[in-house]
Formats: sequence, C-alpha cells, structure tokens
Amino acid sequence: MPELRKDPVVGRWVIISTERARRPSDFAGEPVRPHSTDCVFCPGHEDKTPPEILAGRPPDSRANSPGWTHRVVPNKFPALRIEGDLDPTGEGPFDRMTGVGAHEVVIETPEHTGSLAAMPVESLAEVLLAFRERIIDLKKDSRFQYILIFKNHGEAAGASLEHPHSQLIATPIIPIMVTEELAGSLQYYKRKERCVWCDILRHERRARRRLILESHGFAALAPFAPRFPFETWILPGRHRSAFEESGVDELRNLAVVLGDFLRRMNRTLGDPPFNFMLHTAPLSEPALEHFHWHLEVIPKLTRVAGFEWGSGFFINPMPPEDAAIALREAGG
Amino acid sequence: MPELRKDPVVGRWVIISTERARRPSDFAGEPVRPHSTDCVFCPGHEDKTPPEILAGRPPDSRANSPGWTHRVVPNKFPALRIEGDLDPTGEGPFDRMTGVGAHEVVIETPEHTGSLAAMPVESLAEVLLAFRERIIDLKKDSRFQYILIFKNHGEAAGASLEHPHSQLIATPIIPIMVTEELAGSLQYYKRKERCVWCDILRHERRARRRLILESHGFAALAPFAPRFPFETWILPGRHRSAFEESGVDELRNLAVVLGDFLRRMNRTLGDPPFNFMLHTAPLSEPALEHFHWHLEVIPKLTRVAGFEWGSGFFINPMPPEDAAIALREAGG
Repeated sequence: MPELRKDPVVGRWVIISTERARRPSDFAGEPVRPHSTDCVFCPGHEDKTPPEILAGRPPDSRANSPGWTHRVVPNKFPALRIEGDLDPTGEGPFDRMTGVGAHEVVIETPEHTGSLAAMPVESLAEVLLAFRERIIDLKKDSRFQYILIFKNHGEAAGASLEHPHSQLIATPIIPIMVTEELAGSLQYYKRKERCVWCDILRHERRARRRLILESHGFAALAPFAPRFPFETWILPGRHRSAFEESGVDELRNLAVVLGDFLRRMNRTLGDPPFNFMLHTAPLSEPALEHFHWHLEVIPKLTRVAGFEWGSGFFINPMPPEDAAIALREAGG
Repeated sequence: MPELRKDPVVGRWVIISTERARRPSDFAGEPVRPHSTDCVFCPGHEDKTPPEILAGRPPDSRANSPGWTHRVVPNKFPALRIEGDLDPTGEGPFDRMTGVGAHEVVIETPEHTGSLAAMPVESLAEVLLAFRERIIDLKKDSRFQYILIFKNHGEAAGASLEHPHSQLIATPIIPIMVTEELAGSLQYYKRKERCVWCDILRHERRARRRLILESHGFAALAPFAPRFPFETWILPGRHRSAFEESGVDELRNLAVVLGDFLRRMNRTLGDPPFNFMLHTAPLSEPALEHFHWHLEVIPKLTRVAGFEWGSGFFINPMPPEDAAIALREAGG
C-alpha cells in the first residue's frame, strides 16, 4: 500500500509509492521505454490496461474493444490506491496516512503518433470533456479533497509511454502548490476585493507585452514571473473557479485556444517535451471569488538543479516578454 | 542586468537572467558540454576564469597561476550581478527588483577527474573551509540576506562543466524554501520549545531505521518524508544554526562524514549524478534556537514531471528505511 508522509519541518507531503518500489541497483540506469510496437495504449491492446472507466465509442461498440476515440483507465502502477481508509498515524515527530486516492490515465487518441496539437478541435474537446466527467464522478468520494489533471509529454518531461495520454490523481489532501495559490490569492482578494488572475488579465490586455493570444473567451499569457522558459498560463477570460463547472461550449472554446497554443509552441520550439497541470478549486469549494482556474503549460527546456531545489528560486534565461513575442509571431 | 520578479499569487521570486538569455531556437537542443581538454577550470587555464577571490596555494605561489589546491572565482555567466542597488519597482500588480547578488564558483580540486568522494579528507575540509570563508566575507555586504551553497554533479543534475566544482549564490531575499523551513521550525519550537531537527535526531537515534551513520559529531540520515530516492540530510549532532560559525575541527569532522557518505552513495548507486544544498540560518540571524543547519544531498535518479510541478507533492518509489539499509551496508 502506498503511504503519504508529511515533512515535519515544512509540512510538505510525499507519496512513498511502494507499488513502484525498486531495489537500489534498479536506480543506476535510466528507465527503459517499452518499444512502440508493444504499446499497451494502442487499439487491439485493450486487455493490457485495467478495464476502462469511460470511453468515447459508437453506441454499438463493446467496452474494452477497439473502435474508441479516447479511453479513461485506472493506472496499472498507481501512485495512490483507490481501496482503503486514510488511517492517519504518527511515529514520534512524524505524521503519515495510507496512500488512498485515484490514479487514472486518459488515452487521448487511438493514434500512437497523434497529439493534442495535431488532432481536430472536436477530438480535443472530447478529451477535455472526459477530464470534466471524471472530476464530477470522483468528487462524490468524500475521501478526496483535490484532483490534479496533468500531462507528461516526451521522455524528458517524465512520460514513460509514448502514446498520447494525460493523467489524473485524486488526493486526500490539498496539494501544497494549490494551498499556496489559494492563500496568496485570498490575501490579495481581502486587500483589493478582486481576483488576482482577473487583475493580471486586465493588466496584460492593456500592456499586451505578455499576452500570447485571446479568443473564444480564453487567454494564453506568459506569466510575469515564470519559473521556466516559455511557461504559459491558459485561463478563462471571465472569472471561473472550478474547471468542472465549464459548459460543453466553453470546453470546445478551450480546445480551440489550447490547440492553437500547442501548435505555436511546437513551431517555436520544435515539438518540445512538455508538461501541463490544471489548477482548479478544491473539490469541496467549487465557487471561490478569489480563485481562477488555469492550465499551466511548461515546455521542458532547462534542467532544474541544486540552486532551484535548495532555494525554491528559479533561474529563467528567457524573459517572458520575449517568449510572448515568439509565440505571438508563431500564430497562423 | 538580471532581474528578480515576484509571482503575485504565491509570492515566489524568480531570476530572469538576461546574462544567460538565449533566442527561442537555442532551446530546441540540449546544451552541449565543452570537451574536457578545453576545461576552463583545469590548472594552466587560470586566465579563462575571472580573477580568483580566494585560493589554496603555497605561500610563494602567485594568484591566478597554477599550483593551487582549490580556487574560488566569480561565475563568468552569473545568475545575479554584484554591482548595483536593489531598486524595487512595480508594474501593475507585479513587483520586481534588479538582480543584485553574488555568484561564485568553488573549484574543488585541480584534478579534472577528481571528486569530493575520492579526495583526501584534508582537501575536502579545505573546500568546506572555503565555503565558510566566503560566507563570512559576503555577510559584510548588507544588500544580501542569504547565501546558498550548492553543488551540481553530473550533466543530469545540471552541471554544465565536468571539472569538480560547487557554487555559491548570495541573494537579496531569503529563498522561499528556507522561509518555509524557518516558519515550520519556529511553529514547532513555539509548541514544544525544542528544535525540530534535534527532535528528529533523537527519534532516529532510538528508532535507528533511517539513521545511515553518526560519527565525529555529525549524522547522516534518510528523512522521514524524502522527495527523492536516497535523499539524505547531513547535520551536526548538537544544535547549530549557522554553518559559518563551525570551527576548523568541526569542518574537518564534517569532511570525514561527508566523504564517507558520498562513497557509500557511489557504491550503492554507481556514481550517480547528484545535487547538494546547504541550508543555514539567514545572514542577519546566525543564532536561532529553532533552526539547525543541514546539508541536503539528492542523487538524481528520477524525473520530476507534471504531478510534482503541479502539486508540490513528490512521488518517491524508494522508502527511506530501505535506502538507509542500503547505505548503512555500503559502509567500510
């Protein structure tokens, strides 16, 4: 059973994932990526994943058979396990709880060499709808406080399988990154009675220096203090705190803007490995005046090293104003 | 001039390092490591670094000539610059200041293929003394609030040069990671009137499950909630908040324990790339009852991906109790 452990100094939780445990000697080399002809996510290999939770299929199609447009399946090597109670316990100065959660994989397309950037807008909208549907379903489980949807694309960005997919992890605590955003934005709201992301958007619309594109009710912008070169936030133009409350039309519009942005990124940087992470409100508080949901996209271009790990400070060699110029010019 | 920028939501600062600016196309490939025959840190190439600030040399030896045992030089491509005032300014909802600081390189040995693990304990102690000397000197500059000493060893851990070296960055603000440790440990101290690291040490000495070694007044232990496989903390057995107040004898003892630990790590993991980061008290508050200086060592074995970047939560496939067993058994 995986285990959650809290650092007694900074209060940061980690997942000790015994499901993925390895012997010391296994760490010596780089992980080997399975050869693509054996891809467990490709059509015809549906029996190589746990049974599907959700799929895009024609009405007459049988679950776990080919013919799907996207599939959601439990992760075969989950970081957290769906069964069990939280069972918080102590050990001297330390706190731990059992690693209860959900870890699912969204197989975004049947095409092994496809991508979110290349697929038709309707297919991308279907993937976003699948994200929404899974959040709405998992929200019913009162053990979960947060759901993080994220994507690792490319080996350097942490993907262990090449076939296009994103992931979802439901956690029994609110992750510290989200806690920090919630605390910072609440503080801002208390002072100004305005959402900090709405204020940033207003400022960037006027200044235009870091705005990459805005259309269909969504904006993509280079943040003022990005940790990474070409880091980009995509967010709704009007205040919205919970991603899962987006309507079908809104998610189709997001698909338009996300697809457009990913193609600009690929043109500018030559199909880089990248991550994205969806920051939305905690499950128990979907409607917040001070929190604005947003998707953070980070191309994997630089190495994080001792200074960053030791300080939490990031050294970014690319001013966001210059990144925004390059990404604006890559449109079309 | 590099620039410090503060994220308006979470308050995290980043360094926009225009000294290291690159064009978008420069990010497409991996950085190329200079060939070792051209090494700028090797003896005979002293003119390829900025003039030395400090060096271990025989009394009759001329500065910036061969014959040294270690050298401290300004970083040729500094993340922060030594000249100028902080000049904090705003832009709409944003805060920035000029990137004033110091960025120095400690060339640890004249031997290109040497290492901290392989060098005699006296030489390692000299390197630690150089760290102390640089902190004491830079402390006089009132613009600096913190000095982070760190090491990137191996390309995967962010080293751009192979020749053994560590680095020092003096910053005009206290890094968020240290702020969090200070806040968490102060909270603990207020509740229990004891230092949390002293309590952890007491607990680990009794439990012994995560203690790797303790001798010469220093302990190496696997933390209870490590972010990374084989993450290790090395800290003085008695309460000490400021590294730079260590005596010569203490630093020699630290050299014994650090060298021993690094050789265990290399035996267990086959000379892995790694980082270390020294967490010591802020410059203005060297004597703190609640803070205990420590060196964090993290072998670079796993990739950090979307889940970690999005949540601040780390998935660690190696329970620290098992890591401690392996490192204990690798002694001798």
